[in-house]
Amino acid sequence: QVGILDVDLCGPSIPRMFRVQDNDVHQCDSGWVPVFVDQDKSISLMSIGFLLEKPDDAVVWRGPKKNALIKQFVADVAWGDLDFLIVDTPPGTSDEHISTVEALRPYKPLGAILVTTPQAVSVGDVRRELTFCKKTGLRVLGIVENMSGFVCPHCSECTNVFSKGGGEELAKYAGVPFLGCVPLDPQLSQSLEEGRDFIQEFPKSAAFPALTRIAQHISDAASQQSS
Amino acid sequence: QVGILDVDLCGPSIPRMFRVQDNDVHQCDSGWVPVFVDQDKSISLMSIGFLLEKPDDAVVWRGPKKNALIKQFVADVAWGDLDFLIVDTPPGTSDEHISTVEALRPYKPLGAILVTTPQAVSVGDVRRELTFCKKTGLRVLGIVENMSGFVCPHCSECTNVFSKGGGEELAKYAGVPFLGCVPLDPQLSQSLEEGRDFIQEFPKSAAFPALTRIAQHISDAASQQSS
Repeated sequence: QVGILDVDLCGPSIPRMFRVQDNDVHQCDSGWVPVFVDQDKSISLMSIGFLLEKPDDAVVWRGPKKNALIKQFVADVAWGDLDFLIVDTPPGTSDEHISTVEALRPYKPLGAILVTTPQAVSVGDVRRELTFCKKTGLRVLGIVENMSGFVCPHCSECTNVFSKGGGEELAKYAGVPFLGCVPLDPQLSQSLEEGRDFIQEFPKSAAFPALTRIAQHISDAASQQSS
Repeated sequence: QVGILDVDLCGPSIPRMFRVQDNDVHQCDSGWVPVFVDQDKSISLMSIGFLLEKPDDAVVWRGPKKNALIKQFVADVAWGDLDFLIVDTPPGTSDEHISTVEALRPYKPLGAILVTTPQAVSVGDVRRELTFCKKTGLRVLGIVENMSGFVCPHCSECTNVFSKGGGEELAKYAGVPFLGCVPLDPQLSQSLEEGRDFIQEFPKSAAFPALTRIAQHISDAASQQSS
């Protein structure tokens, strides 16, 4: 049982990635019922995207209003018995991040996964996020380098569109695990775009082994913690 | 005379893009002195990046603190006589955006330039930003599609890594000008990475004509307004 909580309140993208953007959330006795993605009800989502009347509605909210909703998303959603709760945050180290860490503290979160692109500009942002994790006592499970190299589907040559290696270097520098590089992969972005099941449809895609390795890494970290 | 104000307080990237990340700002009688990029002092910058002691310092700030600094950045910096003030915001429609629009209202800002990538997920975010501009009475100067197609340097074939056309469609739908597509260009990202002058060094790059066209469009909009 996996819950996915989208705390990117101004840019909720998780509902579309799972092709459930037209669903609504309902109330039950134990709170808001999250949206289930599959028939087995093994993956449930909560996002402000489900609460907007129209998809173009802008969430013009200052911090305090965001903080109140994030608390509700953690406490007032009928998540049920979850094995994992995955929280997707926007970039930064502000209201969404502080409120999420505070709301989850009683549940002893396993840790944070930091995602960078290879460029120094992006690595700089993630260095600041590392400092945030240190300050708030959140363990860093590892760093992922996204958009790392593009393999041309015509000639199979790889080009490092945004340079390369920034994520791995940063992991070494910070003494945290490097979880791997996810290449720029048109099949992956197409899947996210159309809410299709990448794992089922593109097992031979370049991003597939990279994503599998990252998932394995995190699942290992989780079983170490619980043992 | 151009001023550039970086209100991405948790992820200030402008100083590095101009290779002045080691500069400090000083006080003078008329306020903070911005950092000048060139010898002619025609481009001046202000960013929280100049105020941090160490580059890894995390700005763990909730909204109200961010709002206060943005007001200071507009009112208490000795910008001098500017032809343009360009404000770079993080994604979203929250504290940084509301505070910037409020602080600049007395100066009658020309408008907003919205940047999307081609995917539906990103276009969805920018649709919400369009609603924000409407609500706050900010004119939309136009929409730019970034990361739009990649021309392989080995075989010259173009691949639309993140699909294509989302920005142009959105501009049509919203009835605002489409300013053009900026391709994924390793020379552009390398320039931003190393703080080099893209315009001087790579006039034959694929992104060059796209950027020129966008600049021309904006400068035309500005002269129309002032005439």
